[in-house]
Amino acid sequence: MRETEVPVTFLPWGKTAYVLPGTRLLEAAVSAGIVIDQPCGGEGICGKCRVMVVRGACEPTSAEQKTLTPDELAAGWRLACQASICAAARVEVPGTSLLDARQQILVQCEKSGEPDLAPTVRKRYVELPEPRRGDDEPDLVRLQEAIGPFEIGLELLRQLPGRLRENQFRGTAVMADGHLIDFEPQDTVRQNYGVAVDLGTTTLAAVLIDLHTGDELAIASRQNPQTRFGDDVLSRIHHCGNTPDGLAELSETVVEAINAMIDELAADAKVPRERVYEATFSGNTTMEQLLCRIDPRPLGEVPFVPATGRGVMLPAAKLGLRMHPRAAAYVLPVIGGFVGGDTVAGILAAGMGEAAGPTLLVDIGTNGEIVLAADGKLWAASTAAGPAFEGARILHGMRGSAGAIEKVVVDGRLRINVIGDVPPVGLCGSGLIDLAAELLRHGVISSVGRIEMPEAGDSELAADLARRIVPHDGQPAFLLAEESETGTGKPIVLTQRDVRELQLASGAIRAGIDVLLRQAGVEPETLEAVLLAGGFGNFIRRSNAQRIGLLPGAVEHRKIRYLGNTSLAGARGVCLSRAARQLAEQLARRTEHVDLSTSIDFQTAFAEAMIFPEG
Amino acid sequence: MRETEVPVTFLPWGKTAYVLPGTRLLEAAVSAGIVIDQPCGGEGICGKCRVMVVRGACEPTSAEQKTLTPDELAAGWRLACQASICAAARVEVPGTSLLDARQQILVQCEKSGEPDLAPTVRKRYVELPEPRRGDDEPDLVRLQEAIGPFEIGLELLRQLPGRLRENQFRGTAVMADGHLIDFEPQDTVRQNYGVAVDLGTTTLAAVLIDLHTGDELAIASRQNPQTRFGDDVLSRIHHCGNTPDGLAELSETVVEAINAMIDELAADAKVPRERVYEATFSGNTTMEQLLCRIDPRPLGEVPFVPATGRGVMLPAAKLGLRMHPRAAAYVLPVIGGFVGGDTVAGILAAGMGEAAGPTLLVDIGTNGEIVLAADGKLWAASTAAGPAFEGARILHGMRGSAGAIEKVVVDGRLRINVIGDVPPVGLCGSGLIDLAAELLRHGVISSVGRIEMPEAGDSELAADLARRIVPHDGQPAFLLAEESETGTGKPIVLTQRDVRELQLASGAIRAGIDVLLRQAGVEPETLEAVLLAGGFGNFIRRSNAQRIGLLPGAVEHRKIRYLGNTSLAGARGVCLSRAARQLAEQLARRTEHVDLSTSIDFQTAFAEAMIFPEG
Repeated sequence: MRETEVPVTFLPWGKTAYVLPGTRLLEAAVSAGIVIDQPCGGEGICGKCRVMVVRGACEPTSAEQKTLTPDELAAGWRLACQASICAAARVEVPGTSLLDARQQILVQCEKSGEPDLAPTVRKRYVELPEPRRGDDEPDLVRLQEAIGPFEIGLELLRQLPGRLRENQFRGTAVMADGHLIDFEPQDTVRQNYGVAVDLGTTTLAAVLIDLHTGDELAIASRQNPQTRFGDDVLSRIHHCGNTPDGLAELSETVVEAINAMIDELAADAKVPRERVYEATFSGNTTMEQLLCRIDPRPLGEVPFVPATGRGVMLPAAKLGLRMHPRAAAYVLPVIGGFVGGDTVAGILAAGMGEAAGPTLLVDIGTNGEIVLAADGKLWAASTAAGPAFEGARILHGMRGSAGAIEKVVVDGRLRINVIGDVPPVGLCGSGLIDLAAELLRHGVISSVGRIEMPEAGDSELAADLARRIVPHDGQPAFLLAEESETGTGKPIVLTQRDVRELQLASGAIRAGIDVLLRQAGVEPETLEAVLLAGGFGNFIRRSNAQRIGLLPGAVEHRKIRYLGNTSLAGARGVCLSRAARQLAEQLARRTEHVDLSTSIDFQTAFAEAMIFPEG
Repeated sequence: MRETEVPVTFLPWGKTAYVLPGTRLLEAAVSAGIVIDQPCGGEGICGKCRVMVVRGACEPTSAEQKTLTPDELAAGWRLACQASICAAARVEVPGTSLLDARQQILVQCEKSGEPDLAPTVRKRYVELPEPRRGDDEPDLVRLQEAIGPFEIGLELLRQLPGRLRENQFRGTAVMADGHLIDFEPQDTVRQNYGVAVDLGTTTLAAVLIDLHTGDELAIASRQNPQTRFGDDVLSRIHHCGNTPDGLAELSETVVEAINAMIDELAADAKVPRERVYEATFSGNTTMEQLLCRIDPRPLGEVPFVPATGRGVMLPAAKLGLRMHPRAAAYVLPVIGGFVGGDTVAGILAAGMGEAAGPTLLVDIGTNGEIVLAADGKLWAASTAAGPAFEGARILHGMRGSAGAIEKVVVDGRLRINVIGDVPPVGLCGSGLIDLAAELLRHGVISSVGRIEMPEAGDSELAADLARRIVPHDGQPAFLLAEESETGTGKPIVLTQRDVRELQLASGAIRAGIDVLLRQAGVEPETLEAVLLAGGFGNFIRRSNAQRIGLLPGAVEHRKIRYLGNTSLAGARGVCLSRAARQLAEQLARRTEHVDLSTSIDFQTAFAEAMIFPEG
């Protein structure tokens, strides 16, 4: 049965999410793409997640009454981890309540002795003494005495004598990574911008950053147009192998999209594109090589060898990017063929290099990437979860876009939430996990994954669930929405085969987690934190992820935290801080790549993880 | 009166010079472009300059009889600094007798701990383990483990995965200055070549060097085609200022000539042009900026500011050079607007950074460059000698090419030597100095530079000299060759005005020498060595240079040595040795640029130096 969702609008962005009444604010925020910080793990005790709810919140919880003063409550302050939504709501989120990856990254970089905000791109306004008799120092030496040593390319070197003289030896030196890339007339120190890009296989996301203040000025995202050459990385690699200009085609396609995003960001923030001096990129190994137009074919064959482990620093113009003509591009380092720069970005953004206790980072997608930090060591593995969480191979599966059932709750009755204010058309990853978990709880799915008639009960719920068991291809299936309720005019069901796909996907990730934990000698209950990254676009309900065995049940609920798009956060970090870039390079080298495909341990763990845990 | 010259052919080169009978072998060799070492300053005591004379030598001197054994003399061994030519001669020069700038440069670099021959371009053949399950290291990391850390450009990075696999992970890595520039199939370690170029305002010279053995494989030279835009640097600078594409035109013109020379060198030595991985360039500041297409206009205005003091390292392809597609180019650092990379090359090739005692280096040309080393310090100055030594502004002046009177001797009668086996057409710089010195000795020129009738004598010589005083434009002139003797059918004379031009040219250089010596507190007689570089193309007779006051008379004759083309020698040194390059950068920074144009001292010294010394 589909519940009527209520809209929650988040300010200052004006973004709206439609959620079921009773949904916590934290979760509603994630649905709107906003990640609120929750250092105490959602216990309501640290007060870090405070937001101002203008209207629509349910009554304060006891934790809120304890943590907030009556005056604060009266003024509308609430804790996002506690407060639920009861009606259409407006919520103001102060900057201090946001999960600030920048802050997290910069804190890690403090040790390097760099100032808080020390991007690779730096500007400095100078007024040089003009040459005169008795002071005939070369132009470069003159400039160097003012701004310190630098390298310079031939193009600017050719222009420099003219530039200096046209501007009476005054102007703004623009340095990127120790290279002088421009000398601009007048004082332009405040106009210093960078772009951080998450090169997702499916979705591209980019932020425009003010490198002078550290502020995020605009955000843009769009579908990766490379999907027209194949949904997954392997089909794109094959396109490169099978088509003479395949690689150029794929590279041009994504560069064109990035250029369009830069245009959009620059227009949004009213920033001249020529004042964008650097772009940083984070993506999986294949996406990064495609961007750089490096032959990805070895990534499509055993043993999946990347071209370069290190980050790649290169002139943006060589990639065809339209920014400052001598802008730099930095592509994050990778760990292995299937553990790419996005994972390095995640390790960076999650602060795993400095984790106090054993910490697990899980990025759930077609490839599940798992990173474990323990005793100062780092392990990373990738596991082929398959596309079930992305909605593929599930009969009525779909991505987390408008019309997707993203949440299923069974509390007295079955309730669903749909993304966007539209009738449901399918089931996305988080909805699939919810549904499976609830059906396990109510005995509709057995621990081996069989859909079966629940034990007879006299409640209305038991009768409803029993009624929903319908035959499909000679096997039982679960009817989630009747044809009259859907946007397609067809019923939405979960088939026996869908459950098997979920078992495979969930089992693969869980087996990867177990192998890493075993390799490091870490018991799940001793994990300090389990961090969820990605990708998913929607909130995975922690208890449900544990119920289906995707995450170890022994981990305390509050230790499981959602970090949002860590790939983008990492790209942003390395744009803002040179020290973060060095740290990313170190982290990539420090992390041991565990190859699960050759691990006998993994085969055993996978077989075990295919069985749903007992309730 | 023109004497009949005799040909002297030098082996193994087969080069021939035509010289007056009685000419020392050392001088004849320089005329043929061969510089023989003379550590003892031509005293005939060290034996370093020994050559094998097949025929044509005069009788051995007493110094030769002392230094060489009777057996050696019988076998034809002679000392080039002692033996004179009496008839057509053939001379074999062993490699050990040559002035080896490479050796000199490498000895200086020894301190840096580099091996003897350590060019910036290095090749290494490797057989890498092929990737397999359990060894999925990135391609770059795999290569790096074999050859050490390196940088890599995008172009090669894009090709590398394919290259490695096509060649089963075996091949030759080519490194230039810490950058991997190629990975070639098979073992090509022995095919490693570089080109060193002397960018003269008038003449370009280049050598092809085997970077594996250090050997010089071929040499080429041609007129600098930029001369069609102006003979001197200022007229070329003005061409850049006055013509929209002037700079591009000048740059393309010289690059085209260099490409033609590279083709010629590669063909001579049967070396593929694509195996030439580096070119090094030495020239005056303007020539270097024109090559790099850096606006030279500030070099044409007070205070003559160079664009960059440091050496410029850049991709050769960006200059339009046709070599290996990712070959490097290195342009030597400069000291000032008129003290360029050619002077730095000279300082390097002359070993002045390590000079034991006070040492003077003089490069005589349109601009005289003077360097003084004393007490571990270095001073450099440039002085506008004017083009008299190049034959310009002298009525019958000409460059040191075929038909030029390059030597004048008055010993009982007046004898001249002409370059090439042709009648004389004019007077070049060395001939001009000879003539002036001889006329001073015989009282035909007074110390203030007036041409006057010599004191009457009853000798045939006195009569001949007196007869040669002829009127020219109302002033006395000296008749060097009658119209019946010349190739032009017109007489060759030295006019009163010519003598003034010589006084100006010689005085400017000598004043520069005096100012530097005074600045450093060095007395001329304490100079350890006076080294003559360049440019002149012919041998300046030391006693004559002293007679006219060009060089201080207080310097012992044997301390004046000729180093040949030190600009080319320096360019060769930095091609052969990375340490030499670092040394060149240090020397350029260490050398204090003394601006003579603002020096009152210089004005006084110049006025003094205009007067010829008393005999």
